[in-house]
Amino acid sequence: MIFERTKLIRFHHCDPAGIVFYPQYLVLCNELVEDWFDEGMGVNFFTLHTELKRGVPMRHLEADFLAPSVHGDELVFSLAVERLGGSSMRLAIAAAKDGKVRFAAHQTVVWAALDGPPRPVPIEGEWRERFARYLQPATG
Amino acid sequence: MIFERTKLIRFHHCDPAGIVFYPQYLVLCNELVEDWFDEGMGVNFFTLHTELKRGVPMRHLEADFLAPSVHGDELVFSLAVERLGGSSMRLAIAAAKDGKVRFAAHQTVVWAALDGPPRPVPIEGEWRERFARYLQPATG
Amino acid sequence: MIFERTKLIRFHHCDPAGIVFYPQYLVLCNELVEDWFDEGMGVNFFTLHTELKRGVPMRHLEADFLAPSVHGDELVFSLAVERLGGSSMRLAIAAAKDGKVRFAAHQTVVWAALDGPPRPVPIEGEWRERFARYLQPATG
Amino acid sequence: MIFERTKLIRFHHCDPAGIVFYPQYLVLCNELVEDWFDEGMGVNFFTLHTELKRGVPMRHLEADFLAPSVHGDELVFSLAVERLGGSSMRLAIAAAKDGKVRFAAHQTVVWAALDGPPRPVPIEGEWRERFARYLQPATG
Repeated sequence: MIFERTKLIRFHHCDPAGIVFYPQYLVLCNELVEDWFDEGMGVNFFTLHTELKRGVPMRHLEADFLAPSVHGDELVFSLAVERLGGSSMRLAIAAAKDGKVRFAAHQTVVWAALDGPPRPVPIEGEWRERFARYLQPATG
Repeated sequence: MIFERTKLIRFHHCDPAGIVFYPQYLVLCNELVEDWFDEGMGVNFFTLHTELKRGVPMRHLEADFLAPSVHGDELVFSLAVERLGGSSMRLAIAAAKDGKVRFAAHQTVVWAALDGPPRPVPIEGEWRERFARYLQPATG
Repeated sequence: MIFERTKLIRFHHCDPAGIVFYPQYLVLCNELVEDWFDEGMGVNFFTLHTELKRGVPMRHLEADFLAPSVHGDELVFSLAVERLGGSSMRLAIAAAKDGKVRFAAHQTVVWAALDGPPRPVPIEGEWRERFARYLQPATG
Repeated sequence: MIFERTKLIRFHHCDPAGIVFYPQYLVLCNELVEDWFDEGMGVNFFTLHTELKRGVPMRHLEADFLAPSVHGDELVFSLAVERLGGSSMRLAIAAAKDGKVRFAAHQTVVWAALDGPPRPVPIEGEWRERFARYLQPATG
């Protein structure tokens, strides 16, 4: 399965060149991961942090900025799990308009316990099943 | 040469987990590139954009988040040119505290003309010389 | 008429105290004004700026922060025009949860021409009619 | 006494109109309050929050945006205490370039205990003395 959400590029995402300021793409990725937990897995991101004491801190990030986006653009963001490790996973995220990818990222996030300073923990069976539903191994 | 600037982690860089929200590292990288032009090359970033009609849009980004930083930390940011291409270059950026690297990035930026929609242009001789002073080819 | 939109408080809106970082309320107000133009008046905010050469820069702002909001809260934002002047207007914005107002603002924005440096211009008849539909004079 | 710090307007503070996006002025005010605690009163803002369990959440804000600022501008920010109440105070903040005020704000902040959900507490004598050094009652 692939998780998708449309996001509107806002005035406040853009810089004096009139295009998305690149760190804002990563803020939007963060929103997408929130949406994925909330809607794709039925676990509110706030509950995840404060009650379940789990989080997904960023460990490694690769991103390609392929074409600029401007204020008012509606981009389709997609998310899939590329690799599901013992206590981390790699997410593939892309943002496209009219079928053309403008931004693509690969993010390795850690599955972390938040009862104290964040530390990696094994992905529990129940979570592994949920994440596995979005597994789309990278090709090529 | 390596360009260095100390940056203070602000309250507004941090998230509910009490650590730097990862896209904020990239906002700080953007500040560092501004500082590099202003102080390292003597060309104000605003002048670069509005008068010289040149800019350095992001094309490819890789980043490692190695250890968290909290509000109040002073990080030493460093910047070097890893590769100087025809109309792009790869920058190596790191942020360290007490000599330990917490954040490391490799950013491929395009040398772009801004008289109209941004388009790549060959790095002019004068600029090539300036950038070359910070050339530190990647090792290993 | 009152314009309303529900907005989700995101992880990235919150600070190390776990509550909305107050300038982020104003970023959300900015989104609301965008939504109001897009959906309430049928004029895309991007078109407003780039084609119609009109904008609404902030002149005066008053805001009360009445109760904190946390990540995951859904707030109902409302907008009305409190005063419609010659070349400016005052907007009343509030954000509430379960009927309790958490944030309330009064924003005086200028109706500005953007063909060159922003300058106030008289609100044209067609626009005056549109804005007047949301007129709710302040009471008390 | 008046507390002053010069701040550089960064590319990332500016919007597609090329001027400071207004909520960013408030982010800069937040930095200024941090600087005031750190340097003006010798108490690190992080220590204030995490060890001393005190903070200054915003209660009421008024701001005037008098003239636009662009990327590269250096603004002199000033801060004084206008009114020192029992468990709150009103700060007067202004940002000027070449002696001309571009942004002026009055911010009522609460003196809050952070051991649990933030709640107002009386300003302790030691703190009252520190704050009083910056007291500049509003005139006119």
